[in-house]
Amino acid sequence: MGGTAIIGLGAMGQGMARNIMQAGISLRGFDLSTAARDRFAGAGGIAEDSAVDAVSGCDLLLVMVATAAQAEAALFDGVLDALAKDAVVILSSTVAPSEARAIAARLNDAGHLMLDAPVSGGQVGADGGTLTIMASGPDTAFDRAEAVLAAISKKVHRLGDAPGMGATYKVVHQLAAGVHLVAAAELMAFGTKAGCDPKTLLDIVSSSAGQSWMLDDRAPRMMQTDPVPTSTVDIFIKDLSLVVQSARDSGAPVPLAAAAYQMMVGAGGMGLGRSDDSAVIRAYEALTGCRVTETEAEISATKDANT
Amino acid sequence: MGGTAIIGLGAMGQGMARNIMQAGISLRGFDLSTAARDRFAGAGGIAEDSAVDAVSGCDLLLVMVATAAQAEAALFDGVLDALAKDAVVILSSTVAPSEARAIAARLNDAGHLMLDAPVSGGQVGADGGTLTIMASGPDTAFDRAEAVLAAISKKVHRLGDAPGMGATYKVVHQLAAGVHLVAAAELMAFGTKAGCDPKTLLDIVSSSAGQSWMLDDRAPRMMQTDPVPTSTVDIFIKDLSLVVQSARDSGAPVPLAAAAYQMMVGAGGMGLGRSDDSAVIRAYEALTGCRVTETEAEISATKDANT
Repeated sequence: MGGTAIIGLGAMGQGMARNIMQAGISLRGFDLSTAARDRFAGAGGIAEDSAVDAVSGCDLLLVMVATAAQAEAALFDGVLDALAKDAVVILSSTVAPSEARAIAARLNDAGHLMLDAPVSGGQVGADGGTLTIMASGPDTAFDRAEAVLAAISKKVHRLGDAPGMGATYKVVHQLAAGVHLVAAAELMAFGTKAGCDPKTLLDIVSSSAGQSWMLDDRAPRMMQTDPVPTSTVDIFIKDLSLVVQSARDSGAPVPLAAAAYQMMVGAGGMGLGRSDDSAVIRAYEALTGCRVTETEAEISATKDANT
Repeated sequence: MGGTAIIGLGAMGQGMARNIMQAGISLRGFDLSTAARDRFAGAGGIAEDSAVDAVSGCDLLLVMVATAAQAEAALFDGVLDALAKDAVVILSSTVAPSEARAIAARLNDAGHLMLDAPVSGGQVGADGGTLTIMASGPDTAFDRAEAVLAAISKKVHRLGDAPGMGATYKVVHQLAAGVHLVAAAELMAFGTKAGCDPKTLLDIVSSSAGQSWMLDDRAPRMMQTDPVPTSTVDIFIKDLSLVVQSARDSGAPVPLAAAAYQMMVGAGGMGLGRSDDSAVIRAYEALTGCRVTETEAEISATKDANT
């Protein structure tokens, strides 16, 4: 008996699954999307038609769905009984600390252990096996999850044994990522409206004290008309909502995160929820009446000039 | 005739002056502070008792005071007449684009040229001669300022000939720097209140997608009781005020910068205006009832543990 399963084969889960299998670990998997299951099967995974079938008899389960509600729906409809006794569940979704604690309690009641183990690094990190993991949970759970965690990450931060601490570090991290992402849009829109050349502006700020990882990564995409989504506006609306709510629960005001959240909600309100999260620039473009994103005509002109 | 002068020998000006002199350029200087003048003289500069005496007959003048009001006070009380005819004035103070344009117009009326040339890199960059310069102005002014600019910087961005463009890029840059600085305080306070270890939190965020130059540079100082000021809260209150006002003038809303500005004003309101700008953490500490900064007792304990 035993074995390893994954639930959630989206933008993050697919890459994580591939890296686990490349480490020589046989993997069963489930996702609500048939296309995602087929893709997983094509990469060598054993795709099952239900979560219960995927986890049946497994003693290690990685959950990489988008929200706490999805995690609860996946876990609490037969899966806990279908797992082997005393299984370890690695919850890598970004959820509120209070949600991580609640899920851990239900898992413990059913005789299982939980690693509260959210990740940073996005789709690039998932594909490359270079995620950063912020994890809390019992030592036994860390020991039994070790090979899987090593396969998907470059660094595992062990943050004690209390469920919720992994989620806390991740949510605080998302404050930084979200504020820096929206700040990048804010400065690109303001600068362009004030007469700066967007590319020169990015070059100056990213080589000076205004640099951030998010500016370097997302501002170039803000200048593209239709970048391929790696993480969406909807995901960041959820993450910044978690930041604001978790900070309130802790008794910590977060005025910058609250402002960033509102601008991201605005991008969602413009119908851009499934676009790349760099599309928050469109909210600023709407409010400044100024276009940072290259128009098709400009892109054609650049292409013509280069041929 | 001819010669080079500097007005403003504060935290930035002293280092810039030393690097200009080390490039073999003789330099006369003035500052309202006697101590600053003495320090400049000790480094080999020719200190004068008034701005007019310092610039008399010079054809190149570097102005490195803190505000536009100080620049106007320094320039428009006899200095323009005391300069050689057709002199070049390098204005490196961070001022509003509208202020840079107004000062340039008065200089032009008096027969002089202006380089609108604010800098980034802080005191470390000033001391090391590694500033980034964002400059706009006539080609002639660039040519005649070249040796001085090369002595103080690692990179000169030439941003056209219109006065105000250098200031615009700098002000937009300060949006990023200011938001990232306050975001660093916001996340350190929230995380600490929520149970994270401050050093572990910084380690995780600064090695992930939440990284920023300001987080890397200022968060360690937020954990120190009384860091040596390199740039002050008052300076950032002024800079973020310029961001908010200049953005309004351009018709660009900047909700993140506005929130960051308010928190920096709060740090000033706590009496911390002359403290290092990392002291904005104290405003968040006040609002969370939680201490990120190490107490003296903790510092002693660490020292004891290390001996």
